[in-house]
Amino acid sequence: MSQDLLAALTELLGPAHVLTGADRAAYLPDWTGHYTADPLAVLRPADTAQIAATVKLAAAHGVPVVPVSGRTGLVGGAMTQGGLMLSVERLNRIRDIRPAARVAVVEAGVILSSLHDAAEAADLSFPLWFGARGSAMIGGALSTNAGGSNVLRYGSTRALCLGLEVVLADGRVLDLMSALHKDNSGYDLKDLFIGAEGTLGIITAAVVKLVPRPRAYATATLAARSLPDALTLLNRLQSASGGMVEAFEFMPDTYMRRLTEARPDVGEPFATRHAVNILVELGATAPRDATPGPDGAIPLTTLLEDTLAQMMEEGLILEAQVAQSESQRRAMWQRRELAAEITFARSPVIDTDVALPLDAVAPFLEAFHARLPGLDPQAETLSVAHLGDGNIHLSIFPGSDDAAHADRIVAAVEEEVQRLGGTFSAEHGVGLSKKPSMARRKNPVALAVMAQIKQALDPQNLMNPGKILS
Amino acid sequence: MSQDLLAALTELLGPAHVLTGADRAAYLPDWTGHYTADPLAVLRPADTAQIAATVKLAAAHGVPVVPVSGRTGLVGGAMTQGGLMLSVERLNRIRDIRPAARVAVVEAGVILSSLHDAAEAADLSFPLWFGARGSAMIGGALSTNAGGSNVLRYGSTRALCLGLEVVLADGRVLDLMSALHKDNSGYDLKDLFIGAEGTLGIITAAVVKLVPRPRAYATATLAARSLPDALTLLNRLQSASGGMVEAFEFMPDTYMRRLTEARPDVGEPFATRHAVNILVELGATAPRDATPGPDGAIPLTTLLEDTLAQMMEEGLILEAQVAQSESQRRAMWQRRELAAEITFARSPVIDTDVALPLDAVAPFLEAFHARLPGLDPQAETLSVAHLGDGNIHLSIFPGSDDAAHADRIVAAVEEEVQRLGGTFSAEHGVGLSKKPSMARRKNPVALAVMAQIKQALDPQNLMNPGKILS
Repeated sequence: MSQDLLAALTELLGPAHVLTGADRAAYLPDWTGHYTADPLAVLRPADTAQIAATVKLAAAHGVPVVPVSGRTGLVGGAMTQGGLMLSVERLNRIRDIRPAARVAVVEAGVILSSLHDAAEAADLSFPLWFGARGSAMIGGALSTNAGGSNVLRYGSTRALCLGLEVVLADGRVLDLMSALHKDNSGYDLKDLFIGAEGTLGIITAAVVKLVPRPRAYATATLAARSLPDALTLLNRLQSASGGMVEAFEFMPDTYMRRLTEARPDVGEPFATRHAVNILVELGATAPRDATPGPDGAIPLTTLLEDTLAQMMEEGLILEAQVAQSESQRRAMWQRRELAAEITFARSPVIDTDVALPLDAVAPFLEAFHARLPGLDPQAETLSVAHLGDGNIHLSIFPGSDDAAHADRIVAAVEEEVQRLGGTFSAEHGVGLSKKPSMARRKNPVALAVMAQIKQALDPQNLMNPGKILS
Repeated sequence: MSQDLLAALTELLGPAHVLTGADRAAYLPDWTGHYTADPLAVLRPADTAQIAATVKLAAAHGVPVVPVSGRTGLVGGAMTQGGLMLSVERLNRIRDIRPAARVAVVEAGVILSSLHDAAEAADLSFPLWFGARGSAMIGGALSTNAGGSNVLRYGSTRALCLGLEVVLADGRVLDLMSALHKDNSGYDLKDLFIGAEGTLGIITAAVVKLVPRPRAYATATLAARSLPDALTLLNRLQSASGGMVEAFEFMPDTYMRRLTEARPDVGEPFATRHAVNILVELGATAPRDATPGPDGAIPLTTLLEDTLAQMMEEGLILEAQVAQSESQRRAMWQRRELAAEITFARSPVIDTDVALPLDAVAPFLEAFHARLPGLDPQAETLSVAHLGDGNIHLSIFPGSDDAAHADRIVAAVEEEVQRLGGTFSAEHGVGLSKKPSMARRKNPVALAVMAQIKQALDPQNLMNPGKILS
């Protein structure tokens, strides 16, 4: 049976693009090290038509199809045991950049940083920015509704997508590739597929928004007296600048300690280690904000410096460094972007991706840290946060490598999050790793409606089965 | 059978809130005058629980339920012949305004202008703004994903909604009332119900975003040499201000003529009538943009005046008036906001609501106006456009009041729109009036997927049946 399928796929895609046995090796490990795939084959179709034909063949044989792109996901969403792993890597064309309309037409296998470069060459920017941008692809970013550091200003991937092309479970191609900012012609199908992690269909292409390229950045690392004081800074900067804060990232003292242990070459920002360290960046897109004054400073840097100085005088900020060059700016960002690497270098690790209302971040961290010693006296934590979005990546290194123990700790995180009106899944998605949280924390009516939609669009349950829903 | 249902509803809601016979009168006419409803009864439930119980009763009796709110829709979306008209008008509480989190928690029957007032009292703004704001309610705005004049800066209703409560076809309540900016816990159900015009469930409450209240406006009416020149103005202002253009509205000479005929009291902006008249407004949310300089002018007004002066020198702008007071600003807006009134005062009228890529607006208008005399030599047109969104409300007054004739004209509009990558439904929705367009212009796979979802969530086809889909 599966030999028939493989023969048909080989005829369809060519032998070089149906990988079996040892040829699959590069595709099996998960970036996090928590999962290993064992696909029947890894497929590398050339285009949407081949993907549609592949999905039809798989459906005829009752074999699951799991789309993969850059494989930088953190929740095991691209794993399969025995299904077909369908890589969109060959759909890697930037079909069009239309500067006047400020859109790009891209295929699912385009690497984020390639799109960043292409947009920049047109004097524009694609403002989806995270550590894995050198490998992550558009298809995965859309399928997981990826977030990152610039959500505060530009929204998640969902907000950046105008049009979409999807291969459905029965091989039909759903063409929603419009470049319109307004379109009320029926249900919002696009947003149903974005963030569905390939469980409703395979995203093959998209029309995405481009934005004016910031002409200059004002970037600083600072230590605040407390998290609420840091939020005061965010609100003051947003108000003073008219919403030009592009990133507002929180790194606690535990993060700085672990950074120094893992990467002593990088260095901490301050001689004294502080509890609340913030990386803040404003982006000037208007000439009047980006043109240096007679003193050589851009107006946004002056605005940032003045706000920081005022708050230091008030005692709300303890220390601050404003980047004076692009290399200083890059160094500040490197410190933040090593988070995933230093988190997953240690094992066992329990990683979480929670979001809370902004004013509930500090109460959450306090409540959980007060509770943790009772659950595991040896546990240590490491967090970073997109504080401007209320999104915390709290990692726990537990005292023992026991699955039930880890689950008790995760359940405690969820409980505190739920109590404060938050979510257990902010930007990484659900995949396999958040499925238990999904089952026990998600509103049961919402779960039932999701299952109804899944059943309607994928009645054979062959599209990335077992992810998000059971 | 229907007497049993009415008796049960009367017991549930109280006799004062089950209107039959002549008591229904106020609810029967459609705002456009094109449709008249004939409901079995008009219901006025008090809360979500009563709506859920009502929907359950209706489902048990197999009777359709059509939600209505402010009844200012333009596509006949709230009509029913023999079904239950369920008004959400009594769910009219603003439950909470949370200034720190910049959200409001509102019920479906809250009138837009009430929310505007409440937000303003908290020094914030709810930036959904259109002519019918004094009657239109949140529930209808969400169900139609309403647009309006500020979409350019703040997005459509969809973009302003963080959380939602929906009564499903079987009476279950779907509680998605979160206030989070990031939440990837499964499928994006919220956006499926927004814009679904009540065909998948009844929206009963929402968490909506509030934004910083503009502290000052820079507003002008101007005549451009051509539509492309007007777009040059828009792009220059966006670039110079960093995206602070809140509205960019187009009124052609035909609009000015009709305005003068219908409302001679209002007056035209210029002594000479020009082909391309634009109302532009920038909003200053940052103190540095809103604080008057030594000359008393706010920086954004200076920016606007300088840009206009430069373009007049280049010959791209022919005449311009910058509002020097709030009353001058209001007068400029009144001229634009009379559009619906003067369009629907004349009969027969064919109203359309199309959107195009920004650079395709002028080619569309040219192509259609070249084609129209061949279809109807007596036809006249009247358009206004949210030009910054590519959204044109092109109305045609045909030479004869014949349905087949009107449909031929609509089909010609659709053809030109489709050829240029646009949509036949931008911000008003589909309802009844755009159903023929939906059937012949919407991608057939998209239509089939919508029908699959409708079937899954409303298998009895009782939720606003016959709207959007057949």
